[in-house]
Amino acid sequence: MAELADLAAQLSPGALVTDRDVVDGYRFDRALFCPAGEALVLIRARTVDDVVAVMRFATAHRIPVVTQGARTGLSGGANAVDGALLLNVAGLTEILEIDPVNQVCRVQPGVINADLKQALAAEGLAYPPDPGSVAISTIGGNVATNAGGMCCVKYGVTKDYVRALTVVLADGTLTRLGRETAKGVAGLDLAALFTGSEGSLGVIVEITLGLTPALPAPVTGVGIFPDTEAAGATVSAFMAAGAAPSMLEFLDGATMAMINAYGDFGLPADAGALLLVQSDAPGDDGAAELARFAETATAHGATEVVVSDDPADSDLLVAARRAVAPAMEQYATGIGGGELIDDVCVPRSRLGEFFRRLRLIDEKYDVEVATAGHAGDGNMHPSVVFDARDEAMVAQAQAAFAEIMELGLDLGGTITGEHGVGYLKREWLGRELDAGAARMHRAIKDALDPQGILNPGKML
Amino acid sequence: MAELADLAAQLSPGALVTDRDVVDGYRFDRALFCPAGEALVLIRARTVDDVVAVMRFATAHRIPVVTQGARTGLSGGANAVDGALLLNVAGLTEILEIDPVNQVCRVQPGVINADLKQALAAEGLAYPPDPGSVAISTIGGNVATNAGGMCCVKYGVTKDYVRALTVVLADGTLTRLGRETAKGVAGLDLAALFTGSEGSLGVIVEITLGLTPALPAPVTGVGIFPDTEAAGATVSAFMAAGAAPSMLEFLDGATMAMINAYGDFGLPADAGALLLVQSDAPGDDGAAELARFAETATAHGATEVVVSDDPADSDLLVAARRAVAPAMEQYATGIGGGELIDDVCVPRSRLGEFFRRLRLIDEKYDVEVATAGHAGDGNMHPSVVFDARDEAMVAQAQAAFAEIMELGLDLGGTITGEHGVGYLKREWLGRELDAGAARMHRAIKDALDPQGILNPGKML
Repeated sequence: MAELADLAAQLSPGALVTDRDVVDGYRFDRALFCPAGEALVLIRARTVDDVVAVMRFATAHRIPVVTQGARTGLSGGANAVDGALLLNVAGLTEILEIDPVNQVCRVQPGVINADLKQALAAEGLAYPPDPGSVAISTIGGNVATNAGGMCCVKYGVTKDYVRALTVVLADGTLTRLGRETAKGVAGLDLAALFTGSEGSLGVIVEITLGLTPALPAPVTGVGIFPDTEAAGATVSAFMAAGAAPSMLEFLDGATMAMINAYGDFGLPADAGALLLVQSDAPGDDGAAELARFAETATAHGATEVVVSDDPADSDLLVAARRAVAPAMEQYATGIGGGELIDDVCVPRSRLGEFFRRLRLIDEKYDVEVATAGHAGDGNMHPSVVFDARDEAMVAQAQAAFAEIMELGLDLGGTITGEHGVGYLKREWLGRELDAGAARMHRAIKDALDPQGILNPGKML
Repeated sequence: MAELADLAAQLSPGALVTDRDVVDGYRFDRALFCPAGEALVLIRARTVDDVVAVMRFATAHRIPVVTQGARTGLSGGANAVDGALLLNVAGLTEILEIDPVNQVCRVQPGVINADLKQALAAEGLAYPPDPGSVAISTIGGNVATNAGGMCCVKYGVTKDYVRALTVVLADGTLTRLGRETAKGVAGLDLAALFTGSEGSLGVIVEITLGLTPALPAPVTGVGIFPDTEAAGATVSAFMAAGAAPSMLEFLDGATMAMINAYGDFGLPADAGALLLVQSDAPGDDGAAELARFAETATAHGATEVVVSDDPADSDLLVAARRAVAPAMEQYATGIGGGELIDDVCVPRSRLGEFFRRLRLIDEKYDVEVATAGHAGDGNMHPSVVFDARDEAMVAQAQAAFAEIMELGLDLGGTITGEHGVGYLKREWLGRELDAGAARMHRAIKDALDPQGILNPGKML
């Protein structure tokens, strides 16, 4: 395409990449079983002006644009589509401002979540959201998917921290949404509309986040259960009594076996389920909260509960939880490479029923289902692992994957608690939304992206 | 209009009101100096079906609709417009469900905030948002304006609690936005888009709110200052040090004089400013937090700091703060009835400068400016009080009112922290939004309300 030379001339030197091997290296995020198209070119944006130029060009020539960050997503939202400009903003990595007095910061979208956390810690501040990808995912991607994590049960999700966004619209218009202040109701909450919009409405080029003071060191506890239902009942009862843990995570037996095969994190060898709980309540309140957890867990059949305020114990257990992803990947690779990670979120009171019916799905198909999740929020990640070289197994895995989402909806939940819709679940979004909400999605998309060039074929 | 008989036949008996005196009684909310048009009729909706029928009728006949709750708003957002159907949903008063296990509730829009709080307290639960109108305003109105209050400094605003909304769109479509679960990212966050949309996008007929466990009893403190700047500097320093008060309110000397004339709340007679602070941190942490407040206040020139954990003291001081509105109204009535309540929100670090420049505005005009506000959030309510019978004073008051909003914007803030745009500040919204954001507002409005029948002439 001859006009690409004009675009290249407007961009930072070297930003436009046409080398096919390099472009193809950016085709996929981390979702499995999501197709990717063949992109026209890759733009590694270095400046906001680069993004504006790309969007003006895209609108002038009616070319699709797929925005990407670190491509750590799990739904194919950042996968290439045919003929698209791949607009990668991972190179916009500046932390523009940290303001300890107002407890806000301004960052570019390519800043890695963990890097921001580290910079804030030096100022006595914290940005709580901590998706599993915290060490490798960008704040821009976190905002585009409204990322969650382990802290959400107490500290909320990404959207709870987004105050303002600077975005580039489909036609290249640069605009500021939201505001820097703690409160503000002037006009529609367009910053909230953009948060979680998965690149379908515009390109986020700057983010203002509200912050908290540095979080206190937590007390950590572990409950071991004979089966998943006992763990689910414990979560429901503990939270219903008014608990405010800073973490409440779940691992089932299959997941623990995979972690034990991956490394020595001190997990039990033959338990049915484990709950990992933390409280960062000040003074003695943390210990008191964990004592209530121990009591509740024991009453619901826990075979063992251990509590510790030694940071080393806490670090090891959190490391075990964070090892779920690589441990499952290692296991899946060993049996033929198939892994479909689900992300349903159900009301906490339905967790027991969820686990019961999940076991029936596991038994129905010849694939394995291993589940970890953010139990305190009812946000569960059942992973379907299988031999991807065997077509029959792939079909079974996809059927099990779908049935898990159906179960989530059936229990009053959602098909995705934090991973997003992307390509992976776009067929399913239509089942979750009613007709009116689906029409509203389409109307807003058409209003803000009339040519339909922003991440087409994803989410909507 | 002959077709009104058809509409009446579709509605609950008596819902359609044509009596001119009754209809006119619903023309205004509590904003001053906001015009109201002459409505066609009033509909006192009793059911969701009533709302659907009204919107279908309105779309079929292209008639404007102004949705109202308790009409306690301060921006004219619920004021009638000429020829409109006044759709009052204050009669939809059912608390549909309180779920202590999942800590959510479902309510109709006409439920009074304080009534919901009371019902929740019986279950050991809380819905924190507490606008000044807590005793008289509805949850539907709170959501439509994204209402704030005194707890926001620790517990956030209405939008932080909205999980799902059932709304009726312009054409009568009934749809559900958001979800009941703690997390969820399936599609655009349309519930957030509707929160604070001031009746411009649809009619809210059911609300699902996330809740917290009952809030602990607070420790209360008061700091007395010689001037407003000293109080502002205290707020900035106290919050920057990582404080998490559950309330941090400000009164200036003029406001305290009005409160003292209104009732005996034990406020000092000749102070320049007062800060009212509470901490509900558990155990000894509340007292420790207030000790830090006392230290900070003293270091910044406080002439007196008093701390108490006696609930009676706390109740009296909070009652004094809540008396601001009636006390100012009484004072304004005494001098000729003029009162314009501003609602700017600025970064906390700019409060000192805000107070300095606010004094210059006060001195420049022959009107009085009395200020109270949510200091911890930087959300200030300077009220311009004046003789409304004197045209020259009215002009001066309006100039001062505008200059205060200009000051808010100039300090990196917003024209409205919690009261909304409505009619009062619609000219000003255009100054706060940049061209791109303004175009997006218009595009979304046109997409969801193509005939422009929903609350025309307000906000947008």
